[in-house]
Amino acid sequence: MKLASLKSGRDGKLVVVSNDLAYYADAAHIAPTLQAALDDWDHLSLDLRNLATDLEHDAIPKERFHEREAASPLPRAYQWADGSAYVNHVALVRQARAAEMPESFWHDPLMYQGGSDGFLGPRDAIPLADAAWGCDMEAEVVVVTGDVPQGASRDEALAAIRLVGLTNDVSLRNLIPGELAKGFGFFQSKPASAMSPVFVTPEALGDRWKDGKLHGALMVDLNGEPFGRADAGVDMTFDFGTLVAHAAKTRALGAGTIIGSGTVSNRDADGGPGKPVAQGGLGYSCIAELRTVETIQGGKPVTPFLKTGDIVRIWMEDEHHHPLFGVIEQAVGG
Amino acid sequence: MKLASLKSGRDGKLVVVSNDLAYYADAAHIAPTLQAALDDWDHLSLDLRNLATDLEHDAIPKERFHEREAASPLPRAYQWADGSAYVNHVALVRQARAAEMPESFWHDPLMYQGGSDGFLGPRDAIPLADAAWGCDMEAEVVVVTGDVPQGASRDEALAAIRLVGLTNDVSLRNLIPGELAKGFGFFQSKPASAMSPVFVTPEALGDRWKDGKLHGALMVDLNGEPFGRADAGVDMTFDFGTLVAHAAKTRALGAGTIIGSGTVSNRDADGGPGKPVAQGGLGYSCIAELRTVETIQGGKPVTPFLKTGDIVRIWMEDEHHHPLFGVIEQAVGG
Repeated sequence: MKLASLKSGRDGKLVVVSNDLAYYADAAHIAPTLQAALDDWDHLSLDLRNLATDLEHDAIPKERFHEREAASPLPRAYQWADGSAYVNHVALVRQARAAEMPESFWHDPLMYQGGSDGFLGPRDAIPLADAAWGCDMEAEVVVVTGDVPQGASRDEALAAIRLVGLTNDVSLRNLIPGELAKGFGFFQSKPASAMSPVFVTPEALGDRWKDGKLHGALMVDLNGEPFGRADAGVDMTFDFGTLVAHAAKTRALGAGTIIGSGTVSNRDADGGPGKPVAQGGLGYSCIAELRTVETIQGGKPVTPFLKTGDIVRIWMEDEHHHPLFGVIEQAVGG
Repeated sequence: MKLASLKSGRDGKLVVVSNDLAYYADAAHIAPTLQAALDDWDHLSLDLRNLATDLEHDAIPKERFHEREAASPLPRAYQWADGSAYVNHVALVRQARAAEMPESFWHDPLMYQGGSDGFLGPRDAIPLADAAWGCDMEAEVVVVTGDVPQGASRDEALAAIRLVGLTNDVSLRNLIPGELAKGFGFFQSKPASAMSPVFVTPEALGDRWKDGKLHGALMVDLNGEPFGRADAGVDMTFDFGTLVAHAAKTRALGAGTIIGSGTVSNRDADGGPGKPVAQGGLGYSCIAELRTVETIQGGKPVTPFLKTGDIVRIWMEDEHHHPLFGVIEQAVGG
């Protein structure tokens, strides 16, 4: 089952979307918003699934689904917490600034609490007020949970995952060092993120969803050129069950909690940092990683961060090269 | 005007509460929840104010208000971000561990993104799974904002403050050093907080609300003994206008954003760290500050963190010694 929220008010209007993303059926008679569906998932998800089946069988009225009319599936959420599950990425960043990475990073997940009071729509411009902030995209996988009790095990956490999607976790790189030096984590350096037009239930992903990971190439284009093709199922040190259980260690998580994977990152086939797509590599899911590789190899970064007018595309394809979650496509706004 | 949410479902039931907190009037015909009222404040707040006036004038049906039946006014919220506006507190903590505090801390607010997916009710037990985590209270002032545009000035931010209240920002002290050392801020060390039974509009606070600060003694009792009596309007380096503007520097804030002051802390009259209430001082708003003073004075902390059965009370009184926001009273649960 694929769910989306058409732009409408603060929380959007819940619709069920066909597998090929061509059509939608209004789900307002079941739940007005995705949050309302998640709040009562045990009761409502069966009705939503029946609606999805009817939509596939052409048994109900349907409308054309236009991704540009979609808000983020949860236009605002009660929680957004982002892990750093691709430890390869963290190790590279540390290597570039000649800082040692603690060995504990390989078995204790990094996670930060993000802002969830308003997500950008998947086709909304990124409202960048100051190019000097060093705007970057971060292509990631996210899951949405139901209620998760405090102290949940990895298996319990996995069972609480209701939906899977993608995000562009917008980051202001030049604000990060000063902010992290203050010791309290990210705040101004993490403005609003955008989510993929549709979120998908794990069972509808077939063998793409396995062992708590989403498998397949995460496609990232920058200004029409392939930038990243890393496989989200590879080099993911912590699966989503582990990430959700980490988040729930000392407190329950409310339904509609969004947990991110952190920037997807693959090692090169030779074990070293990934190569650019143009050089036959799998590329990068953020500009910072490329700049890090440039620093390691040439002493300084070359590729600039995003500037007004740049266009970022993030998506993942099914076996027919059709987007699984729709496409995040954002211009950087001035 | 004073607003509360009676326990009901995930978001409570909005009620208007009389100034003396003795009675309430159901506000469901105006807005079912406080979030709904905040989402459309310009239209709905006038109706709520009229209801509050009618309640004071005994012109409408009313019910007894019992604080134990109240949830946190926003039982869950889209954003909770907590500042450290009482820099005195930060300086003391640094002094205790012989760490220098950057001079920038006096003009650049510290703020962390907290979890907002579920707040404890003001009389709910604190669900502490492991006493070794070092559970502590933090008595603070909070404000709730309407929509705040990105880049809002301090004055614009001040004008967007809709409600004022108190919080017990529960902290797990023994998890903090390890978590902050990882560099991404608090996560597991900040479980669910509790808010005061009622939130109050700034204009209803009279001269208690001035220059973006709440003035008056923040009362903290631990197991029935006075623990803290610090004045929230004193030694607050950053007022709420500055804190909200800081939060909005790189992104808009959604209506219903809760911004905290950080632990309230006053210097002693002699300029040094505060003395315990029993020694004629204003005491402390968290155990960690007392332990810090003990460490500075005696080489090591003496007062233990919270254990199962301990009872924390947090409130603020009006000129008739009546609680302004109701009372947060929480037992530590096993």
